[in-house]
Amino acid sequence: MATMKAMTYYGKNDIRFEERSKPIILQPTDAIIRMTKTTICGTDLGIWKGKNPEIEHTAIQITGEWTGRILGHEGVGIVEEVGSAVKNFKKGDEVIISCVSRCGSCENCQKQLYAHCRQGGGWIMGYMIDGTQAEYVRTPFADTSLYHLPKDLNTDVAVFLSDALPTGHEIGVQYGDVKPGDTVAIVGAGPVGMGCLLTGQLYSPSTIIMIDMDDNRLAMAKELGATHTINPSHEDAVAKVLEITGGRGVDCAMEAVGMPATWDICQKIVKEGGNIANVGVHGTSVNFELEKLWIKNLKITTGLVNANTTGMLLKACECSKLPIEKLATHHFKFDDIEKAYDVFKHAAETKAMKVIIEFE
Amino acid sequence: MATMKAMTYYGKNDIRFEERSKPIILQPTDAIIRMTKTTICGTDLGIWKGKNPEIEHTAIQITGEWTGRILGHEGVGIVEEVGSAVKNFKKGDEVIISCVSRCGSCENCQKQLYAHCRQGGGWIMGYMIDGTQAEYVRTPFADTSLYHLPKDLNTDVAVFLSDALPTGHEIGVQYGDVKPGDTVAIVGAGPVGMGCLLTGQLYSPSTIIMIDMDDNRLAMAKELGATHTINPSHEDAVAKVLEITGGRGVDCAMEAVGMPATWDICQKIVKEGGNIANVGVHGTSVNFELEKLWIKNLKITTGLVNANTTGMLLKACECSKLPIEKLATHHFKFDDIEKAYDVFKHAAETKAMKVIIEFE
Amino acid sequence: MATMKAMTYYGKNDIRFEERSKPIILQPTDAIIRMTKTTICGTDLGIWKGKNPEIEHTAIQITGEWTGRILGHEGVGIVEEVGSAVKNFKKGDEVIISCVSRCGSCENCQKQLYAHCRQGGGWIMGYMIDGTQAEYVRTPFADTSLYHLPKDLNTDVAVFLSDALPTGHEIGVQYGDVKPGDTVAIVGAGPVGMGCLLTGQLYSPSTIIMIDMDDNRLAMAKELGATHTINPSHEDAVAKVLEITGGRGVDCAMEAVGMPATWDICQKIVKEGGNIANVGVHGTSVNFELEKLWIKNLKITTGLVNANTTGMLLKACECSKLPIEKLATHHFKFDDIEKAYDVFKHAAETKAMKVIIEFE
Amino acid sequence: MATMKAMTYYGKNDIRFEERSKPIILQPTDAIIRMTKTTICGTDLGIWKGKNPEIEHTAIQITGEWTGRILGHEGVGIVEEVGSAVKNFKKGDEVIISCVSRCGSCENCQKQLYAHCRQGGGWIMGYMIDGTQAEYVRTPFADTSLYHLPKDLNTDVAVFLSDALPTGHEIGVQYGDVKPGDTVAIVGAGPVGMGCLLTGQLYSPSTIIMIDMDDNRLAMAKELGATHTINPSHEDAVAKVLEITGGRGVDCAMEAVGMPATWDICQKIVKEGGNIANVGVHGTSVNFELEKLWIKNLKITTGLVNANTTGMLLKACECSKLPIEKLATHHFKFDDIEKAYDVFKHAAETKAMKVIIEFE
Repeated sequence: MATMKAMTYYGKNDIRFEERSKPIILQPTDAIIRMTKTTICGTDLGIWKGKNPEIEHTAIQITGEWTGRILGHEGVGIVEEVGSAVKNFKKGDEVIISCVSRCGSCENCQKQLYAHCRQGGGWIMGYMIDGTQAEYVRTPFADTSLYHLPKDLNTDVAVFLSDALPTGHEIGVQYGDVKPGDTVAIVGAGPVGMGCLLTGQLYSPSTIIMIDMDDNRLAMAKELGATHTINPSHEDAVAKVLEITGGRGVDCAMEAVGMPATWDICQKIVKEGGNIANVGVHGTSVNFELEKLWIKNLKITTGLVNANTTGMLLKACECSKLPIEKLATHHFKFDDIEKAYDVFKHAAETKAMKVIIEFE
Repeated sequence: MATMKAMTYYGKNDIRFEERSKPIILQPTDAIIRMTKTTICGTDLGIWKGKNPEIEHTAIQITGEWTGRILGHEGVGIVEEVGSAVKNFKKGDEVIISCVSRCGSCENCQKQLYAHCRQGGGWIMGYMIDGTQAEYVRTPFADTSLYHLPKDLNTDVAVFLSDALPTGHEIGVQYGDVKPGDTVAIVGAGPVGMGCLLTGQLYSPSTIIMIDMDDNRLAMAKELGATHTINPSHEDAVAKVLEITGGRGVDCAMEAVGMPATWDICQKIVKEGGNIANVGVHGTSVNFELEKLWIKNLKITTGLVNANTTGMLLKACECSKLPIEKLATHHFKFDDIEKAYDVFKHAAETKAMKVIIEFE
Repeated sequence: MATMKAMTYYGKNDIRFEERSKPIILQPTDAIIRMTKTTICGTDLGIWKGKNPEIEHTAIQITGEWTGRILGHEGVGIVEEVGSAVKNFKKGDEVIISCVSRCGSCENCQKQLYAHCRQGGGWIMGYMIDGTQAEYVRTPFADTSLYHLPKDLNTDVAVFLSDALPTGHEIGVQYGDVKPGDTVAIVGAGPVGMGCLLTGQLYSPSTIIMIDMDDNRLAMAKELGATHTINPSHEDAVAKVLEITGGRGVDCAMEAVGMPATWDICQKIVKEGGNIANVGVHGTSVNFELEKLWIKNLKITTGLVNANTTGMLLKACECSKLPIEKLATHHFKFDDIEKAYDVFKHAAETKAMKVIIEFE
Repeated sequence: MATMKAMTYYGKNDIRFEERSKPIILQPTDAIIRMTKTTICGTDLGIWKGKNPEIEHTAIQITGEWTGRILGHEGVGIVEEVGSAVKNFKKGDEVIISCVSRCGSCENCQKQLYAHCRQGGGWIMGYMIDGTQAEYVRTPFADTSLYHLPKDLNTDVAVFLSDALPTGHEIGVQYGDVKPGDTVAIVGAGPVGMGCLLTGQLYSPSTIIMIDMDDNRLAMAKELGATHTINPSHEDAVAKVLEITGGRGVDCAMEAVGMPATWDICQKIVKEGGNIANVGVHGTSVNFELEKLWIKNLKITTGLVNANTTGMLLKACECSKLPIEKLATHHFKFDDIEKAYDVFKHAAETKAMKVIIEFE
């Protein structure tokens, strides 16, 4: 049986770059993709740190064994093979792989709530099934999980269309209802916060305030379009946002970290009639000041990306003058993916934002 | 100077039915209304209990004195006099008084966020200025705060158009995005919860579950259109809602009480992709389980009524077959308003929902 | 090879009730349904009259031969067999068949514009492929074209969920943006106009004016919820609508006929800021009075049903108190389908609205 | 009585630059503005040509006499005096004058349909009352018709916020539902078409095709952000749009001329599921190909600007990098306004787009 190289999770603090069998078509709606570029998500780091033990438990429940899970849910590649029911793609097509799969027919898919597909879709790659940090990957529901890569699109940008940009756009910008002339604050200048920053500009807000503890990331945010930056280790973020907005607060506050302290900034800076769009993944409950906020006519949203705007973003990115490609701070060969993980893990020192991993 | 009878707040646990000067036109946009019917809101009880000491403080700050505040922000009456700039109303017109006033020109009013009018509007009657529990009331911004009373509209229902119905409709039903076929749970079967229940039916949800500790109120909810009722003192409300909804939870949970426990029910029964519409007035913070909810693609809303749908509701109520008038459980003469307060305060025993107070 | 009875179109004025081969699974996503009830649509009459010669031409282009097309795109039945990729249905399930099929993955399906599926979906049954007026039918894309029939739903109503109700709801009511308290006029009291009338009531408009030349249909419209009726053969429809609406016109005019004269009524009765929802199928161009209408801030919509609200309507109809079942004026055995066509064709005399055809 | 210079319409082909009385406060909600910049609209040319004889007729009906109407509904100035009820402005404030006035309390104003204000608002300046092409102008409903001029905003751009930009934005871009990645065609590269082009870019469409007979205007459109241009005198506009869009047509076609031929281009180039936003002012009916279009699930909109997005645009323009100021092709002193009219009237030869007229 043909083998390939893959980055695999075995358990807390145990990931291995090893030889694995090449994937094969299991369902008529599957495709096999030969990867050309992938990247590492903060979620992958979380898995590595042991935050998702359900991966192993579920594998054992379903298959009775545990042979490690190939990581990764982002990337571009070339179609190697398609199942008999795949209509939109054929061998040789260059494609972007969406981080979200969808059956297309369950109650939630019929509402475009693909993140909550009830029949084997949702976020599954590099999680419930093997992922994209390998030479080949099997993508279920290929007709709706792949996108043709436009010829003129920068392939690093294409990689960001797998997850970072749709997440920022759908969960930050669309749920946060960003409109021309709005004031926006984004708490957290990591890859997803930057996804919010970049896709937010598609709607022409007048003010975008980026808040983060890392001055390097704030500097990068300025390059990517932030009009103001605040580092809460040097100054009172809430007071500063109110100062910038003439005491009014922001139309939209986006939480892109996932901590009680960053949530708290959001609930203190939003204007009456405004929105808090929670994009961050939280590990604990937060204190919700309803005694102050009930009266403020707020909308608070949460969620996992549905990837229902990937097609829209693809067209917008193709023509955009936004410097999206600058998100890619580092490039590695796939053989050096362990180094890439190391650099991405120590982003504060290495100034890494997104690391692009290139296959031969 | 002409005098009138009025129900007046002097301080915590100190309300007095007393003789006051009749109001006069202060601004060209004012009107003076001779009241024909009014009612008592839960908010009025809160003021009585001392929950709004800002009333006295603000009065002293502005006028240097404190002579008590006439209560009430609901009711219907007959126009007695209009200021020189009032165009839509004239002496003798029968009108419904909205609980929310609006300047119409500030930043928030231009966004139809009238609850947060920045120039002397918002909820001010019976709060920042004298209210409707008096023989006469001055209504600022009369052109946009009054509505012509349709001839065929039940006048008790008209009284509910001042506050209970628009609040339920805007903050519960519209913010909660109730659609045909939806499953809805309403936590709290008081007047505002009933406002949610009644106006929710304008959009034809298939299931409306009413949750309350008071079996009498639940029985009334059934009469008003609830398809299911749950009393959390007898059974596990969360488990029961999940049972009714086939384990899925509801499309929309409305919080119409304002307590951590009722908020908690809401956050535990909402389906992925669903809405929590907070209508309750909260006195303390709540625990927000973002570690479970971040992934669920929820929309959570809060707010004070803008009364921007009063006109729409007025037309809908005129033709509706909903038994809205049943909300009025008790009727009193104005001279007996102290008894009305007593009955409304002891709603559990008296089975009061809304008490209508009729002027001669 | 097993055979069955079927109603088949051979050419203009040539339909035949004849013996045909039973359909078989062609694609893994197909299902075979044993029909229990079907009905006849105005479109079927149109095909009979020769309005859709493309049926024969396309068949010849694709298969090189022409053996007649089985008519019908509505009905309920029992799943007889499913293809290997069908997940939501199994043999024995009772189902409603949607008139619109969808691949689910093309550009248009990804926008929920299923009527314009670019890969073999859209309205195809009884048109581009054999339809439901037969003992058995093959339904492509079964997972998204079928709906589980709720136990408590009247099966005549279920038949109307194939086409008449979703068409009225999506193209009339949703596109027409009907809201509580609105004034609505529906021009045309045929099955689709009645679908508009019934589903419109899910949103609680205050006034629904039905306009038709047939007094019998107007009487039925009154029973189904119309507040006013106008027969343009007896009175000036435009003048009458203006009279009913205090000279203002309607918030929403729905065109449910498909003629220049009925379009013209719509453009003359719509209020500034209002909507014209064209539901009718037109055979000629119409005169659009843009010189009068450009200034009126109108929204005019057109379209073919996407059947994207069938699931919503199914839940709403299950609980509704609307007398939807009254649409079924006549019932026939399948062996008498020729008689059913005759009755439906002469609706003015027979007072037929929808004719239900029952299989053994 | 103090006098001033003013450009005044007396009748068809009869406009006069003459001495007039300075306006005075008539209503407590009025303001008097000393103009600093104004401009000429295509509508002003239309009045000059005799297209609006109702101006004279109405004046005579109301006042019994006809002394000419001062033209103009655009411009910026300095508040000279305010009525007693004006709260948002005071003498000395620099302001932008909106072309639309609003009472704020009628049925239509309560729906933000200010263009159709039923109590003395709507488009009235330079039409039903004296306008802005004068040293001083009276603006009714000053609190909602004026906007504070931001310090950093280019004052030519500010003048375009009176009409050209809000009209393009509301009637073209918002009604046309322009989204990131969309394909848009704008038929007509005059000032309003350019307003559509500029404000459309706030939403990041990927393709904007400008269609006009004037190559000079097309060249300017390219500078202002059009991705493609088509001159129908040289090539088949419909065929070219289909070629650019891969045979699919556009998501949104905007009609910015007001002629049957330009409407016809729009109805032939719009994709299924797309929008036609009519911005043009039409003098005759058009042929609406409903026999082809009924099936296409289109939205067609029309309208007069409500100026409800002026505040939003003001903030967006302040920060925008769009070259909006380039719309101003010519500058004149107010004493030379007759020359400005002449240049603007002969735009094809003079290459005029918007002419800015500066007061001393």
